[in-house]
Amino acid sequence: MTLPVLNRVRVSVDVMGGDHGPSVTLPACQAFLKRHPEVELLLVGHPDALAAAADWPRTQLVPASEVVAMHDPVEVALRKKKDSSMRVAIGLLKGQGAQLPRADACVSAGNTGALMALARYLLKTMDGIDRPAIAASMPNQTGGFTTVLDLGANVDCGPEHLLQFAVMGSALVTSVTENEAPTVGLLNVGEEVIKGSEVIKRTGELLRAADAAGQIRFHGNVEGNDIFKGTTDVVVCDGFVGNVLLKTAEGLGSMVKGKLKAEFTASWLSKLSALLALPVLNRFQAAMDHRRFNGAALLGLRGLVFKSHGSADAFAFERALERAYEAARHQLLDRVHERVAATLQTGAPAAETAE
Amino acid sequence: MTLPVLNRVRVSVDVMGGDHGPSVTLPACQAFLKRHPEVELLLVGHPDALAAAADWPRTQLVPASEVVAMHDPVEVALRKKKDSSMRVAIGLLKGQGAQLPRADACVSAGNTGALMALARYLLKTMDGIDRPAIAASMPNQTGGFTTVLDLGANVDCGPEHLLQFAVMGSALVTSVTENEAPTVGLLNVGEEVIKGSEVIKRTGELLRAADAAGQIRFHGNVEGNDIFKGTTDVVVCDGFVGNVLLKTAEGLGSMVKGKLKAEFTASWLSKLSALLALPVLNRFQAAMDHRRFNGAALLGLRGLVFKSHGSADAFAFERALERAYEAARHQLLDRVHERVAATLQTGAPAAETAE
Repeated sequence: MTLPVLNRVRVSVDVMGGDHGPSVTLPACQAFLKRHPEVELLLVGHPDALAAAADWPRTQLVPASEVVAMHDPVEVALRKKKDSSMRVAIGLLKGQGAQLPRADACVSAGNTGALMALARYLLKTMDGIDRPAIAASMPNQTGGFTTVLDLGANVDCGPEHLLQFAVMGSALVTSVTENEAPTVGLLNVGEEVIKGSEVIKRTGELLRAADAAGQIRFHGNVEGNDIFKGTTDVVVCDGFVGNVLLKTAEGLGSMVKGKLKAEFTASWLSKLSALLALPVLNRFQAAMDHRRFNGAALLGLRGLVFKSHGSADAFAFERALERAYEAARHQLLDRVHERVAATLQTGAPAAETAE
Repeated sequence: MTLPVLNRVRVSVDVMGGDHGPSVTLPACQAFLKRHPEVELLLVGHPDALAAAADWPRTQLVPASEVVAMHDPVEVALRKKKDSSMRVAIGLLKGQGAQLPRADACVSAGNTGALMALARYLLKTMDGIDRPAIAASMPNQTGGFTTVLDLGANVDCGPEHLLQFAVMGSALVTSVTENEAPTVGLLNVGEEVIKGSEVIKRTGELLRAADAAGQIRFHGNVEGNDIFKGTTDVVVCDGFVGNVLLKTAEGLGSMVKGKLKAEFTASWLSKLSALLALPVLNRFQAAMDHRRFNGAALLGLRGLVFKSHGSADAFAFERALERAYEAARHQLLDRVHERVAATLQTGAPAAETAE
């Protein structure tokens, strides 16, 4: 069952993207290159910014004259800035770069809306997929992670979209963990309150049918806390709910961190105890460090695009590069394609209900 | 502007509700009675369970022969178990109890769906409110709290419902904090991704109009992390999103707690450092203790009903009693009624768009 692993991976990087641009992306790229002797990088950005990487090994510099700003409307990214670093970096996945080789994956910390729109426009969606989705991994209590999608690409989703997310999310988990039959949960509200909206109920039926047909392994409904319990490998939800839960988790995480710090620096006595507890606190902080999980996959496109958090530092950006690298190495694109094709070929509900 | 405060508050308690029933609710009631010499309790439950409270001061025992189980469907609670402790406790808000006095507020840790359905059936909704909502307070970084609604009563909401939530949430904050003009945020997804669904956009228009008319103080869109930043006093969302975010926060909170404990007990050295850091860790734990925030208000009904978490312990259940007491003492019902009436009388959007 295991697909062969790529020996050589080429990643295109939007050096200008994110809140900090080259001051973060370049050090991350340099560390990443050192860690992986089989990686090649295509660095896209302002020639001035790229100058620092002029003598790096296995690196090609690709000039781009424009930058998509963090608050540029999607239209500006799509129609005006035709030579943006983001657009050129994505284009390299199609081999759109004069004498340049084709990239296997692309990473950007830029504006999510623009990245999704450009990726969709340049790469097109995969057969059988109506809407691409954003998938990320969140740490759970088992010590592993839960893959959640969609995290914000689609505000309103129908049952057939959520089924597609389930199929793509399963392929993502399989490609990274070698788990051939990841479990899927449908995010819903507590049974005792309400049984969910009409869309959720119909999605449940589709997912059960797909499970019966052996296309996915459907666990049933899950709730918000199940993400951190690790009840299932994949959790599907619409992009509105997914974005809210992601931001809620970020907000709570940062409050906890702030509070812990405040308590340990409140007095000289608590500072002393912090000093003594430092190894423990460092381990705790490392385990809870959301930067380790940076890098969300844009799934359902004919190319691998990864989105880094806009505020990522070099450590976090390097993690996004790692994720793109792992996905390319394990041929995620083929995995998703296979799963989607299998679901369609068997006359599954996705094919029946898609218009 | 300040309404007079009630000098004597009478709370009816569903002693049988929750995962633990009387073993949790009775000790909480006893502690609560001691703390508030001006409180009277109406304890509703099986006569056997109530026997323990036979000689308590300011306490009347109200027998009820049935119990709504945590997983009873709403229909069972409504149509079959007509003598349930939950139903009788809510009924006391209307003075439905032979020779018993009317209760000012009611508290139950039972099944949320049943509680909302019974409360709605027995008490009816307030004029101007289409759907009652569940509102709870979540701690934020400012050291205060953010009031979020709806947390699960309504899966699908229209703009006019969200406006009503904004009005009711503002009244709740005012009654408890004396802040006469609490700010309201509309929960949305990151601007840079998508601008929100049609419902959210139309809600934004209604909230802006209500702000212009001086009925609420609308801050604008907020994201999940703003709840913990304390960007606004009130955050409104539909019940599906609210329930997911509440459960997500609970799940993450419990993972963090577990991880911190695991790190501090990993070795004898870390145990020693935990011992030294104990005062700090205890302060941290107390500050993060979600039990302090137990007790959600069912708003929009012609009576004050508070829902405790089903798994609450005696400390947490007592907090729910406190919340009900504070709300009754500050005449929350009149506050909500006033605000809703004011919004309707001025011909605000709520009145125009409601069918």
